[in-house]
Amino acid sequence: MKAVLVVGDGMGDRPVEELDGKTPLQVAKKPNMDRIARSGTCGMMDPISPGISPGSDTAHLALFGYDPHQVYEGRGIFEALGTGIKVEPGDISFRCNLATVDEHMTVLDRRAGRIMKGGKALARALNHVGLDFYPDIKVFFKHSVEHRCSMVLRGPFLSRMVSDSDPHHDNFPIQIVRPCDATPEALRTANILNELTRKFHGILESHPTNIKRKSRGLLPANAILFRGAATLPKMRPITEIYGIKALIVSGEALTKGVCKAVGMDDIKVRGATGTLTTDVLAKAKATVENLPKYDFIYVHVKGTDSASHDGDVKQKIMMIEKIDALLGHILENADLNELIIAVTADHTTPVSVREHTGDPVPLAITGPGVRVDPVESFSEIDCAKGDLGRIRGLDLTPILMDLIGKAKKFGE
Amino acid sequence: MKAVLVVGDGMGDRPVEELDGKTPLQVAKKPNMDRIARSGTCGMMDPISPGISPGSDTAHLALFGYDPHQVYEGRGIFEALGTGIKVEPGDISFRCNLATVDEHMTVLDRRAGRIMKGGKALARALNHVGLDFYPDIKVFFKHSVEHRCSMVLRGPFLSRMVSDSDPHHDNFPIQIVRPCDATPEALRTANILNELTRKFHGILESHPTNIKRKSRGLLPANAILFRGAATLPKMRPITEIYGIKALIVSGEALTKGVCKAVGMDDIKVRGATGTLTTDVLAKAKATVENLPKYDFIYVHVKGTDSASHDGDVKQKIMMIEKIDALLGHILENADLNELIIAVTADHTTPVSVREHTGDPVPLAITGPGVRVDPVESFSEIDCAKGDLGRIRGLDLTPILMDLIGKAKKFGE
Repeated sequence: MKAVLVVGDGMGDRPVEELDGKTPLQVAKKPNMDRIARSGTCGMMDPISPGISPGSDTAHLALFGYDPHQVYEGRGIFEALGTGIKVEPGDISFRCNLATVDEHMTVLDRRAGRIMKGGKALARALNHVGLDFYPDIKVFFKHSVEHRCSMVLRGPFLSRMVSDSDPHHDNFPIQIVRPCDATPEALRTANILNELTRKFHGILESHPTNIKRKSRGLLPANAILFRGAATLPKMRPITEIYGIKALIVSGEALTKGVCKAVGMDDIKVRGATGTLTTDVLAKAKATVENLPKYDFIYVHVKGTDSASHDGDVKQKIMMIEKIDALLGHILENADLNELIIAVTADHTTPVSVREHTGDPVPLAITGPGVRVDPVESFSEIDCAKGDLGRIRGLDLTPILMDLIGKAKKFGE
Repeated sequence: MKAVLVVGDGMGDRPVEELDGKTPLQVAKKPNMDRIARSGTCGMMDPISPGISPGSDTAHLALFGYDPHQVYEGRGIFEALGTGIKVEPGDISFRCNLATVDEHMTVLDRRAGRIMKGGKALARALNHVGLDFYPDIKVFFKHSVEHRCSMVLRGPFLSRMVSDSDPHHDNFPIQIVRPCDATPEALRTANILNELTRKFHGILESHPTNIKRKSRGLLPANAILFRGAATLPKMRPITEIYGIKALIVSGEALTKGVCKAVGMDDIKVRGATGTLTTDVLAKAKATVENLPKYDFIYVHVKGTDSASHDGDVKQKIMMIEKIDALLGHILENADLNELIIAVTADHTTPVSVREHTGDPVPLAITGPGVRVDPVESFSEIDCAKGDLGRIRGLDLTPILMDLIGKAKKFGE
C-alpha cells in the first residue's frame, strides 16, 4: 500500500461575503475532492493546535509528525535545503538579501529593487569564496528568487548565536555582526560574517551584472545582508522512523527544504513553479510515475496561498479547481487498490484576512481499509461532520503510515 | 475587531430528574445564547482535560491560555489580588481566617461564628502592622467576606516554604509555623508568622469590635489563622503576549484576582455582587461602555455556580436567564460588525452533585469571519453537534485572539 498526500497551501478559508457567506472550497467545482470525501473519512485538523496561526514551515513540520515547538529554530535552514544546498549537522545557515549600499555601506534598498535578473550569476560569484583569516571555513551561497539567497557556513567552531548584519530597514548602515553569547565560537562566527560582508561587497561591486545594471540606471546589487542564523534541527527522518521511501513534488523552496530535512527525496518537475501558473498536470504525472518507487508521495501546491495573500477569491477558486484536476489525474491513473489518498491544507489563509489564521483545515482520506463516513463534499463546513473529528497536524502522518501498514506497534 | 467572553460560573450541568432529564440550559429561556449558537460555531470544551474537575481558579487560568499544571500554586495569591492588594513578585501571600481562640490559643471556632459584621474594621487594625524583630517586612492585610481575609508579606529573604498556623479543625491549638525546607528564608518567614500570630492576637483581643461582640454574647474574632503560603506565578500577561488591552467585569474576588494576575484591568461595577442578586444589566452596560477602550472584555457571572452548590435548579435557571439578558443587552448595543462574542462556562456544577465535576461545557462563538455550523441552541447536548468539536480551555484564548486578528504567526 502507498500513500499520496496532496496539500493546497493556505487552502482553508472563512465565509466570504461575495460568495454569500460560503468558502472558496464550498463554491469551487471539485468533483475529485468530493469523490475522496464521499468514499472516505473526513475531519477537521488544527495544523498546530486550535487558534494557533502557523507558518508554512511549522505547519509542514507538524504534518510530517515533528512538533515544531521542539524542532523549529527558524526558516533559514529549510530555505537553504530547498535551494539545493546540502546542509549537514553543525552547519550554520543564513537567509540573505541581495541589497544596494552606498559608499559608506548604508543600505539604500534592502532588496536591490527586487532584482529580477542576474541574481543567479551574482550568487555564483560568491559561492565557495575563500576567507583570508579563516581558511578552514567553507562558504555555500545560492540564489533562490528575486533578491533572496541562502548561505551556509561549514567548518569547525561555528555558532548560530550571532546577530544579523541586516538592519531590517532602508537607510541604515549594514550592521556589524556581534556574538550573542560569550563563547569563542560565537565571536569567531561574527568575525567570519564581518569579513564576508567586506569580501562580498568587493566581489559584487565590480561584477559585470552590476556594471550592466548601473549603466541601465538600475540599483546595483552590491552587498549581502545576513539574517536568521540557524542550525539543522535534530530530527530523525520519517523515512527512517517508518522504513519508507518518500518523495516531495513541489515547486517551492521552503516546502522542499522542510521535506528534505525530514528525509524525502526531491525531484525537479518541469513547470512546477510554486506560482499560480504552475503545471499541476505535470505534478500529477510525476506523482503517478514515481508511485512504483515510493511508499509516500507528498504533493504541494502553493498557488492557493498566494491567491489568498492577494485577497483574490477568483484566483483562489481557480487554484482549488487546478488542485482538483491534479487529484483527478492521480485517481484515474494510479492503482486505487494499492493507494491511500489524502487531501488537506497546511493552514487557513482567508482571502478576507490575507494572512494565515488559526482556523482548522478540512481533511479527507480515502483508500482500501478506510472507514467511510456520510460526508459528501470537501469543505471547511462539510468535513466538520466527518468521523475523523478534530485532530492535529501531528496526528496526520501516524494515521497515513498506519493505513499503509508502515506503523510500528507501541507496546505488545 | 474586539472580543467579549461571557462565562456563567459552573453553568454546565448534567440531566436533572425534575426537569425530565434535561439540563437547566436546555430548559431555560435563553434566546440570546441561542442566537449566538445559531449564527456561529459551537462545541464542547474541557476546561482542563476530559474528566478533570477544575476549581474556578485553575479553570480561569486555562481559559486565558495558562496551563494550570505549570502556573498554579494555590488560590491565595489570586484572592489577595482580588481583594485589592497589589501583589508584587517576591511577595508571599496567605489566606487567613478571623477565628476565635481561648486563653491557651486553642481554636474554639475557625470562623469566629462566620463573623458577618466588623471584619473590615478588624482587618484595618492589622494592615501595615509593624514587626518588632523584622522592621524590614511590610504587612498588607485585607478583609474579603465573612471570616475570610488575605495577607501579603513584602520584604527581603522571604519564602513560601512554611507550614500553616491554621490547625484546620476546631479544638486544636493554633499551630507554630515551621519552615518546610532548610533555607534561612523559610526559617525567617516562619518566625515572622509566629510573631504575627501573637501580635495580631494582642490587637484583636482588645479591639472595640470584639469587646462589642463579647458584650452581645458573640464569639470574639480574636486570632488570625494563616494557610496556603503562595507566590505570584511567573505568567507573561496576555495583554503583553497579544498586545491587547483587556478588562474584567466581575463581582467576585477570586476571579478578579486571576484576571489581574494575567494583566487585565478591573473596574468596580455598582451592583455586581458575585451573588444571585447581582445586577447583570449594570455589567452589560459597563461592557458596552468600555468596548471602545478595550480589545478583550471578560464578563463573569458567579450566581449560576452558587445556585448549583445549593442544589437549587430553579435559581440556576433564573441565573441562566439573567446571563441571557446580559448577552441581549450587549447584542443590542454593541457594534456587531466589529465584535466576536463567545459564551461558555468555566466548569460544570451539576445541581444534583452540588460540586464541580469534570464534564465538558458548551461553547458558542459568533462574529465576523466565524464559520457557521447548523447548531440552533446553546446547551450541553446541542453544542456537542457543533463544528468546534471538543476543545480544551487552553485553546479558547488562542481561538478568540486569532479571530480578532491579534494572534502572532508561529513560523513563517
